[in-house]
Amino acid sequence: MRLRGRKGILEEIAQQKNLVVLDASEYKGKWSQFFGNDRPIHVELGMGKGQFISQMSVRNPEINYIGVDMYDELIRRASEKGRLAWEDKGVDSPPNLALLRANIENIDEMFEDNELERIYLNFSDPWPKSKHARRRLTHPRFVEKYIKKLNENGEIHFKTDSQTLFEFSLNSFADMELVMRNISLNLHREELREDLVLTEYETKFHNLGHPIHRVEVVIGEKALAKHREEKKTKYRM
Amino acid sequence: MRLRGRKGILEEIAQQKNLVVLDASEYKGKWSQFFGNDRPIHVELGMGKGQFISQMSVRNPEINYIGVDMYDELIRRASEKGRLAWEDKGVDSPPNLALLRANIENIDEMFEDNELERIYLNFSDPWPKSKHARRRLTHPRFVEKYIKKLNENGEIHFKTDSQTLFEFSLNSFADMELVMRNISLNLHREELREDLVLTEYETKFHNLGHPIHRVEVVIGEKALAKHREEKKTKYRM
Repeated sequence: MRLRGRKGILEEIAQQKNLVVLDASEYKGKWSQFFGNDRPIHVELGMGKGQFISQMSVRNPEINYIGVDMYDELIRRASEKGRLAWEDKGVDSPPNLALLRANIENIDEMFEDNELERIYLNFSDPWPKSKHARRRLTHPRFVEKYIKKLNENGEIHFKTDSQTLFEFSLNSFADMELVMRNISLNLHREELREDLVLTEYETKFHNLGHPIHRVEVVIGEKALAKHREEKKTKYRM
Repeated sequence: MRLRGRKGILEEIAQQKNLVVLDASEYKGKWSQFFGNDRPIHVELGMGKGQFISQMSVRNPEINYIGVDMYDELIRRASEKGRLAWEDKGVDSPPNLALLRANIENIDEMFEDNELERIYLNFSDPWPKSKHARRRLTHPRFVEKYIKKLNENGEIHFKTDSQTLFEFSLNSFADMELVMRNISLNLHREELREDLVLTEYETKFHNLGHPIHRVEVVIGEKALAKHREEKKTKYRM
């Protein structure tokens, strides 16, 4: 394996103008221009090596995906995965995928209000010490920002293997009196849910026998109305 | 151990007029008369052998407790526990405890609307088969009844060791868009919470290393207002 200095990585990812965005605020309010269409935008905050967002982009070509992470090396790896995932399709660069190098703390710089349809949080850092609770990506101070960025169809989809982070997150959503849905304490209880796109961590933790926890939070007005309509037939009262 | 026929048990519990109620509807809307005062009424639906409700009655003399279960033998055992728990106090029969022999399906016959302040569900039968979901005590068809029986300070406190029942219950409360609070996926994670009164099952399951799950549901208008006030200082935003 060829060793690369930080400068080498940065040069490599900087060349991929169709895939990588290095300036956090460059496309704020203009992501539709980046993608060249008005399709819904789904963002993964903390995409890591990019397996989830890459596979999602292939599975759902009608959605535009943005993976956010703050390290050059992760952006480089995700860009490789993204191109690899689309290789079979005979395209040079994934048409519906962007990789944004940015600190999630600065989400206000990255997206305009109502610009996003969905936010994915997958296996976020649990920050186990209570003095670091404010850094957890499901802390109300973050969730309030997400709510602003989400549109009328907006939802937050969260999964983690951390029991303590999941507990904190359920309480955070509950304390904000948000509408939760499809709460799972062991997502792959019956069998590995191949229908859901897995992250690198998820496959690893599942194989180690750790249960995966998951919840969806319904935010946008239209999403809420649809959810309430669907619920009506759920319980035979 | 002396063996007793069903008739013997029924005769024994029938004598304890200050403690045991055998006719489900006898005190509907008149529980204050049973206790001889207007103190708040907390009910445990499915009290089993009565350890929890007995200890709660001793710890909180300013609350009236009603334990409900449907089998004579459980009522008998709970009556023994209740009297034993109060023995030190030099009273013949627990002054703030009632044991009601009744089927929870018939909760409408037992209590008037708004008659209760709190409902405890402890280690309810998980009814694991999905075809029996309607029998779970946290199914919306039951929760809708509880809501009617609870007053403006009303809350539901639920704990279980069953991961699947807890998951079902969180979704049930979430689907009803009720306000949840203090969600715990492992109540005794740090240490056995001696400050909380434990049930027989709870001690046993905790000792076996099973995590106990718990949630409070805030129902009444005053309880909600108080909860929202208290939440304001919870997160330093």
